[in-house]
Amino acid sequence: MDQIRVIDVKESVLADNDREADRTREALKKQGTYFLNVMSSPGSGKTTTLRRLIRDLSPKFKFGVMEADIDGDVDARAMQEDNVKTIQLHTGGMCHLDAGMAGRGLSEIGTKDLDCVVLENIGNLVCPAEFDTGASGNLTILSVPEGSDKPLKYPLMFQVCEAMVINKIDVLPYFDFDFDKVREYALMRNPDLQIFPVSAKTGEGFEALEAWLSRKILDWKKA
Amino acid sequence: MDQIRVIDVKESVLADNDREADRTREALKKQGTYFLNVMSSPGSGKTTTLRRLIRDLSPKFKFGVMEADIDGDVDARAMQEDNVKTIQLHTGGMCHLDAGMAGRGLSEIGTKDLDCVVLENIGNLVCPAEFDTGASGNLTILSVPEGSDKPLKYPLMFQVCEAMVINKIDVLPYFDFDFDKVREYALMRNPDLQIFPVSAKTGEGFEALEAWLSRKILDWKKA
Repeated sequence: MDQIRVIDVKESVLADNDREADRTREALKKQGTYFLNVMSSPGSGKTTTLRRLIRDLSPKFKFGVMEADIDGDVDARAMQEDNVKTIQLHTGGMCHLDAGMAGRGLSEIGTKDLDCVVLENIGNLVCPAEFDTGASGNLTILSVPEGSDKPLKYPLMFQVCEAMVINKIDVLPYFDFDFDKVREYALMRNPDLQIFPVSAKTGEGFEALEAWLSRKILDWKKA
Repeated sequence: MDQIRVIDVKESVLADNDREADRTREALKKQGTYFLNVMSSPGSGKTTTLRRLIRDLSPKFKFGVMEADIDGDVDARAMQEDNVKTIQLHTGGMCHLDAGMAGRGLSEIGTKDLDCVVLENIGNLVCPAEFDTGASGNLTILSVPEGSDKPLKYPLMFQVCEAMVINKIDVLPYFDFDFDKVREYALMRNPDLQIFPVSAKTGEGFEALEAWLSRKILDWKKA
């Protein structure tokens, strides 16, 4: 009984959410601001990856960052050290951001002068995948220590993303991580998934990832 | 508006859930079966930790394992290689297990002859912490590659657990992980938290963890 009630509410919430997400996307398309939603497990290296990505691409594009957390502001403070326009969103215990919360963040940060606004979502491989935030594109980060089986266990995340970063390849020698398997499992979920093995620590692999994001931002600006 | 509706349902669901969890706990107390709920991020090493723990303690206690996943059965198959009584629970997209789902698992596995039944919850540092499964005790695993700041970002998980395993200490030299900080942050959330640094790969640190679980199981059996 309880379960049926929850699902009813969720469906109507999701339908409302999708409409709001579409409105966000339309508005951002008009002004040429690409909105990237970054999702992953806790501790996969979202902040470190984004700091390097934004530092490298800042000569070409103007970025803004929305850091979402249940509590704390460690990532926002790290981001501000790089002089990137940053705001902190607190979800008050919520496990994901929906289009409404993301929209409030976008108004707060002010997107008019930005080429790309990045949302660092709550660290969670499950719930954030269920909610369209209004992003132009979704990216997930999987890190080597987490293991190659994650696309088997958390299917939706890999379905809704167009790109997967495999982070922490600098520690590959110390973990049993199977690149062929993770590719096979991830492409099973989404055959069009772009895969970028990187080390946010050393910078290895960032050229391809940066080329991808640059192309995405420029394509979004075209009518 | 949407948010208010969701919260109403959630509160009533949580109240129902707490009652069901209490009934589970009472029934398991009567028959002397300790129920351990294990929660963590995806890829922190829940299965590897549990395999070693159960293998080492099997001469003293009879274990059963419930593997919860959104999809797949990799962990259940691994567990069965060790000849441990195991069942796989599929949540169908749900990000956590509640008392009802855990209860169905307990009936299915049959707990009468077990000293300890372990639930390996969905890999998620957020939602599983919100739902009382009826467990006798909650344990969380944080792994070195995830970083020391997790108790700042995911407060509830560290509040509801009585023990925290810090796993993958064998890779400490390759990561910036601050033991003093993680202790400080975790104890801020729960001053009584028991902390066990281990490597599920090498077995380092398991004696203390096993002594803790043995004591928990034996205490539970006392009237």
